[in-house]
Amino acid sequence: MTNPSLLILAGDGIGPEVMNEVKKIIGWYGAKRDLAFDVEEDLVGGAAYDAHGTPLTDATMERAQNADAVLLGAVGGPKYDTLDFSQKPERGLLRLRKEMDLYSNLRPAQCFDALADFSSLKRDVVAGLDIMIVRELTSGVYFGEPRGIHKEGNERVGVNTQRYTESEIARVARSAFELARRRGNKVCSMEKANVMESGVLWREVVTEIHATEYPDVELSHMYADAGAMQLCRWPKQFDVIVTDNLFGDLLSDAAAMLTGSLGMLPSASLGAPMANGRPKALYEPVHGSAPDIAGQGKANPIACILSFAMALRYSFDQGAEAERLEKAVEQVLADGLRTADLLGPEGGSPISTTEMGDAILAAL
Amino acid sequence: MTNPSLLILAGDGIGPEVMNEVKKIIGWYGAKRDLAFDVEEDLVGGAAYDAHGTPLTDATMERAQNADAVLLGAVGGPKYDTLDFSQKPERGLLRLRKEMDLYSNLRPAQCFDALADFSSLKRDVVAGLDIMIVRELTSGVYFGEPRGIHKEGNERVGVNTQRYTESEIARVARSAFELARRRGNKVCSMEKANVMESGVLWREVVTEIHATEYPDVELSHMYADAGAMQLCRWPKQFDVIVTDNLFGDLLSDAAAMLTGSLGMLPSASLGAPMANGRPKALYEPVHGSAPDIAGQGKANPIACILSFAMALRYSFDQGAEAERLEKAVEQVLADGLRTADLLGPEGGSPISTTEMGDAILAAL
Ligand SMILES: CC(C)[C@H](C(=O)O)[C@@H](O)C(=O)O
Ligand SMILES: CC(C)[C@H](C(=O)O)[C@@H](O)C(=O)O
Repeated sequence: MTNPSLLILAGDGIGPEVMNEVKKIIGWYGAKRDLAFDVEEDLVGGAAYDAHGTPLTDATMERAQNADAVLLGAVGGPKYDTLDFSQKPERGLLRLRKEMDLYSNLRPAQCFDALADFSSLKRDVVAGLDIMIVRELTSGVYFGEPRGIHKEGNERVGVNTQRYTESEIARVARSAFELARRRGNKVCSMEKANVMESGVLWREVVTEIHATEYPDVELSHMYADAGAMQLCRWPKQFDVIVTDNLFGDLLSDAAAMLTGSLGMLPSASLGAPMANGRPKALYEPVHGSAPDIAGQGKANPIACILSFAMALRYSFDQGAEAERLEKAVEQVLADGLRTADLLGPEGGSPISTTEMGDAILAAL
Repeated sequence: MTNPSLLILAGDGIGPEVMNEVKKIIGWYGAKRDLAFDVEEDLVGGAAYDAHGTPLTDATMERAQNADAVLLGAVGGPKYDTLDFSQKPERGLLRLRKEMDLYSNLRPAQCFDALADFSSLKRDVVAGLDIMIVRELTSGVYFGEPRGIHKEGNERVGVNTQRYTESEIARVARSAFELARRRGNKVCSMEKANVMESGVLWREVVTEIHATEYPDVELSHMYADAGAMQLCRWPKQFDVIVTDNLFGDLLSDAAAMLTGSLGMLPSASLGAPMANGRPKALYEPVHGSAPDIAGQGKANPIACILSFAMALRYSFDQGAEAERLEKAVEQVLADGLRTADLLGPEGGSPISTTEMGDAILAAL
C-alpha cells in the first residue's frame, strides 16, 4: 500500500516558518507512529506570483486535485497590494477552494484554558468555549457573477453578486448537522433573511433539510448582525453555527479573536468524497501571513500544527492521533511555554517558532 | 416663525414604550428651554401593516419627507415572521431610508463609565471607548438589483446584488471625514477589497476623496474581517470607521454589544440638506423591538432619548442642549439607577421604563 499524499503550500509571510514546524511533526508520525505520508511542496500566493507570474499555476492546481490533503500556510502581503485584482495572492487560495469544490469550511473557535486570561473578554465569558463555525466556502458573493468595475456615464460602478442555489445551501447545512450530532447537537443558522432574498432561501433550505433529515438536532436561526452581537456577548450559547461565505468570514474572525487564541486556531475546508473515500480537503491556520513579523522566528506555529491535527481527523480517520497531537499542544501551553503573540501586556520571555515546534515534538 | 416639525414613528415591540419617554423630554424642551416642536405621530412596521396592510403607507412616507426630523422607535416581531418579504416590518424602515436618501448612518459606540463593568470585555479594553461608525445606508446589497428567488431547472436560486457607484461612496466618505475633523481626526475604511471588486472601488474612491479634500485627516484601510477582529481585540484604536451597508450592519452591532451599553446607543441617519438647510434625518435607537419584553415596562428608554439628543445636535444645531440631555443621562446612571437590562448577574432592583424617563427629566 502506498502512503497517503500531502501537498504542502506554505505560501507567504510567516507561512513557510510555521509550516517548517508542521513538517517536523509529520516526520515524527512517520517515524514513530507508522503513519508515513508522501509529502510534496509547491508555491501559492505571492510566492507563486514571484516565481511564475500567477498566484497559482495550473500544474499546482492539478497536484492539489490529486493530493489526499493539502496543507496551506498563508497568503498575501503588502508587496502585492498594487497587483491587479486577478493576480493578487488571495486569488490563488480562492481558486483552490473553488476548483477543489471545498464547500464546507470548519472553523473551531476554542478557548485554550491556559490562555483564557489572554482574551479581551472576561474569563467567565470565554473559559471553556468550544464552538464550531461552518462557513460555506465556494459560493456567495465571493464567486457570484456578474462582478467587476464598469463605467456608467462618467461614473465607475462596482458590482458583486451574492448567489446561492438550493443544493449549495443544502450540502453545507448537512455538513453542519452531521458535525452537530457528534458535538452538542445544536445548530444556529445565520443570514439576513429580513433584508436579502438569498437569506430567505438560505433559511428555507436549512429548515427543510432539518425537518426531513435531521429532526433530532436542535435548530435555531439568527440574523447575522444579531449573531455578531451574541458572539460578543455570550458565545457559549452556541454549539455549531452555519452561515454563508461572507458572513462566515467576518463572524469566524470575530469568534477567533474572542477566544484570545488567534494564533492557535486551525481550519479545515472539505469537499465531496474522492474515489478513495477521503473528502477533498485543504487545511490552513485561521491567522494570516502576518508580514510584519515574517522571517523573524516569532510566529506561533500552533494553528498550523493543529490544522494538521484536523487533517489526521477528517482526511485520514486518525481521530486518536489527532487527539494525541492536540494534547501535546495543551501540555506545552500548560507548561507555560509561549510564543510572543501569547504574552499579555505583563510580558514574559517568549520562545521562538522552532522552539515551540520542538517543545510540541518533545511532548509527543 | 413656526416650530420645527418632528414626525414620531414609534413602531413595534418596545418602540411605543421608549418613545413615550422621549415625548416627555420633547415636552420639557418646549416648556423649559423655549425649544418647541410640532410633533406628529404615525405608524411604521408591523403596526402599519396591522392598520393598513403595508409596513409604510404613501401618506406616511410623504409626512416623513416633509418633517424636519423623524424619530423612529423600532420595527419587527415574530408575529410578522410569516409575512411575504415585501410586507415585512423591516421594509417600512428600509423604504424610509431609501426614499429619504439617508446615506450616512452615524452609530456611536460609546462605553458609559458607569456601565464599563457590564461589558463582556475587560474593563480596560472598553472603559472610555468612544468610536463612531459611519455606515452607508441607502445602497449596497440592501438595495441592489437584480434580486429575488427564481428557479433554474428544478432548483431555487437566491440572488442579491452588491452595487456601489463612485458618488455613493464619495458622499459617505466625505461625511466620515467631516466627522473625524470634529473628533480624533482619524478614519479607518473597511471593505473586502481582496475579494470583492465593489470593495476595490470603495477603497479607491475613499483614497481619492482623502487625497484631494481631506489630506489633513489620518486615513487607514482594513479588510472587514480583520476589522471585526480588531474591534473585538482593542476597539480604542479606532476613531471613525466608514464602511458599507452590510458590513456596517454587522460591525456596528458587534461594536455596540462590546460597549456593554446596547440599550443605550442611539443612531442618526442623515441625507442631503433640505431647502431650510437641515439635512433629511431619521433618528433611532440601535436596539431592536425586543418583542420578548414588550409591554412590560422593562425597556430601557435611554437609547431612544439619546437619539433625540442626536436630533438636537445634527438637525437643530442645538449642540449645547444635546449635551445637557446627555449629561442628564450620565447623571442618572452615576446615581445608580438601572433598568433591567443594565443589571449584571449580581442583580439589584431595576426601575421601570417610565421611572427611568422621569429620572432623566428630573436630572434635566
Ligand atoms: C485571504 C482571504 C481571501 C480569506 C477570505 O476572505 O476568505 C481569508 O480572510 C479567510 O478567511 O480565509
Ligand atoms: C431591521 C433591519 C432591517 C436593520 C438593518 O439590517 O439595517 C437593522 O438591523 C439595523 O441595523 O438598523
